[in-house]
Amino acid sequence: MTMPNYVKIVEVGPRDGLQNEKAMVPTEVKVALINQLTDAGFVNIEAASFVSPKWVPQMADGADVMARIQRRPGTLFSALTPNMKGFEGAIEAGADEVVIFGAASEAFSQKNINCSIAESIARFAPVAAAAKEKGVRLRGSISCALGCPYQGEVPVHAVVDVVRRMRELGCDEIDIADTIGVGTPVRVQEVMRAAAAEFALDRLSGHFHDTYGQALSNILASLEVGISIFHASVAGLGGCPYAKGATGNVATEDVLYMLHGMGIHTGIDLEAVVRTGDYISQAIGRANSSRVGRALLTKWAAASDAAPACA
Amino acid sequence: MTMPNYVKIVEVGPRDGLQNEKAMVPTEVKVALINQLTDAGFVNIEAASFVSPKWVPQMADGADVMARIQRRPGTLFSALTPNMKGFEGAIEAGADEVVIFGAASEAFSQKNINCSIAESIARFAPVAAAAKEKGVRLRGSISCALGCPYQGEVPVHAVVDVVRRMRELGCDEIDIADTIGVGTPVRVQEVMRAAAAEFALDRLSGHFHDTYGQALSNILASLEVGISIFHASVAGLGGCPYAKGATGNVATEDVLYMLHGMGIHTGIDLEAVVRTGDYISQAIGRANSSRVGRALLTKWAAASDAAPACA
Repeated sequence: MTMPNYVKIVEVGPRDGLQNEKAMVPTEVKVALINQLTDAGFVNIEAASFVSPKWVPQMADGADVMARIQRRPGTLFSALTPNMKGFEGAIEAGADEVVIFGAASEAFSQKNINCSIAESIARFAPVAAAAKEKGVRLRGSISCALGCPYQGEVPVHAVVDVVRRMRELGCDEIDIADTIGVGTPVRVQEVMRAAAAEFALDRLSGHFHDTYGQALSNILASLEVGISIFHASVAGLGGCPYAKGATGNVATEDVLYMLHGMGIHTGIDLEAVVRTGDYISQAIGRANSSRVGRALLTKWAAASDAAPACA
Repeated sequence: MTMPNYVKIVEVGPRDGLQNEKAMVPTEVKVALINQLTDAGFVNIEAASFVSPKWVPQMADGADVMARIQRRPGTLFSALTPNMKGFEGAIEAGADEVVIFGAASEAFSQKNINCSIAESIARFAPVAAAAKEKGVRLRGSISCALGCPYQGEVPVHAVVDVVRRMRELGCDEIDIADTIGVGTPVRVQEVMRAAAAEFALDRLSGHFHDTYGQALSNILASLEVGISIFHASVAGLGGCPYAKGATGNVATEDVLYMLHGMGIHTGIDLEAVVRTGDYISQAIGRANSSRVGRALLTKWAAASDAAPACA
């Protein structure tokens, strides 16, 4: 296997994760979570969304969160910016990177925002232009790139088309997101290779949900075609708000365990992330969705006993 | 990726799975479980263990289970046979394959059975000879091949040494088992390649526990070096009896979803397995550990509604 030596993990728990949790999370918990993640060594944390609080009340305290977190040189804080109002809020709050988004599925776009993919992305043109003018990093996120809850299959050319549009808006980084977690490795490689034909391989990222347990395999498959940026969520925060019991983002701990086991560097302290996953799970009263987190916490709890054996 | 076109799944839920569940499972539930799995298309099911009921009360009804299950041509039923008494019981019960076992970890062998690896495997010589004489298929299972709860690292040469000993006993198939689920893909490939230097690649199997969430990635990594037999447990039955909350065997549903998604044939009906996973989880009162199982059951339950979207 030829693999990248270094992988950048974008920790999306504080935004993509918490946004899809039922519990309303107090601002001080979000701040503590982000500070712990910063201390653990992440270089990029998705910290807030500057979307209307009418639509996403969970993210209404974005400016407050951004104002209260500790900044560490070398850690970029990203914010979702659905429109110019959101962009201005994000800039005022000191976001290092703004994120725009679109679906690769026409059915998803029509059903959710009542316009075509092309129109939805064109609407971000002012945000993109403003980001370029301010010299703020711009990231584009492509949802439903491996499948859609409405239309099922999403053709590769549809993903590539959105990659091209986002490149034309000046995106510095583009996420290929398996929003509903249905992708499998061969298809993931096909999509990643096609995307890389239109955009720099080292600025493409994989965002995999673990709904069908495929996320780590899809990350491994992506690594094999040279992808070196992945999104992950501490303790697997998040989920599908409409599918009870379904798992959300891949757990950061599980990704780090695999990468470090393969000799790939991340600069992140896995044990610190496991403790953070324990903190946030307890703080918001949910089960820890990270298998590595559960296994290591159990092991540490029994540390003074002889190590157990499984049959 | 070059991959096998066909993969044989050995369903180990009725034995390795149930043996590590806390609930005592009634014989009729075991029989129903196995019959459903046979109907779903499995060609190999680990059905029983002929070990002393004093040590493993959960498996005491092995002969009864074997007597009551329906036999379908093309489905082999395997049984663990720790000694000649167990072998005779298994043969009398009509087992198609007997399974012998040993650890690749010296510390594990000493701690658990108070003898060296070499001695523990030599003890199986009469069972192996009897299996050959009877013309019964013989499988050898190597535990702790990717790590040990007592000694930690297990050297590759220690695995290879056990492979060689099992080959010499006449094993038709050999399992490389990550008993505690600690392996990661690069190491898995290294171990599999080394084992394949001593034994036929197409009769080596991968047995991965999902304790650290790595099982599917390790299966993918194994496929890439040509391994085409994998063990899996419906609903992820099993677990580490000493590690609360830790996951056991990789869930069959999750493996099938990945393989079928990659165009690899198994001859198994995934939807039937999901229903079986739901049956056994409810029958023994445990959470379903298959992510595919949970996702599909949720989706089917909401089938008449519009499919949901995750943010």
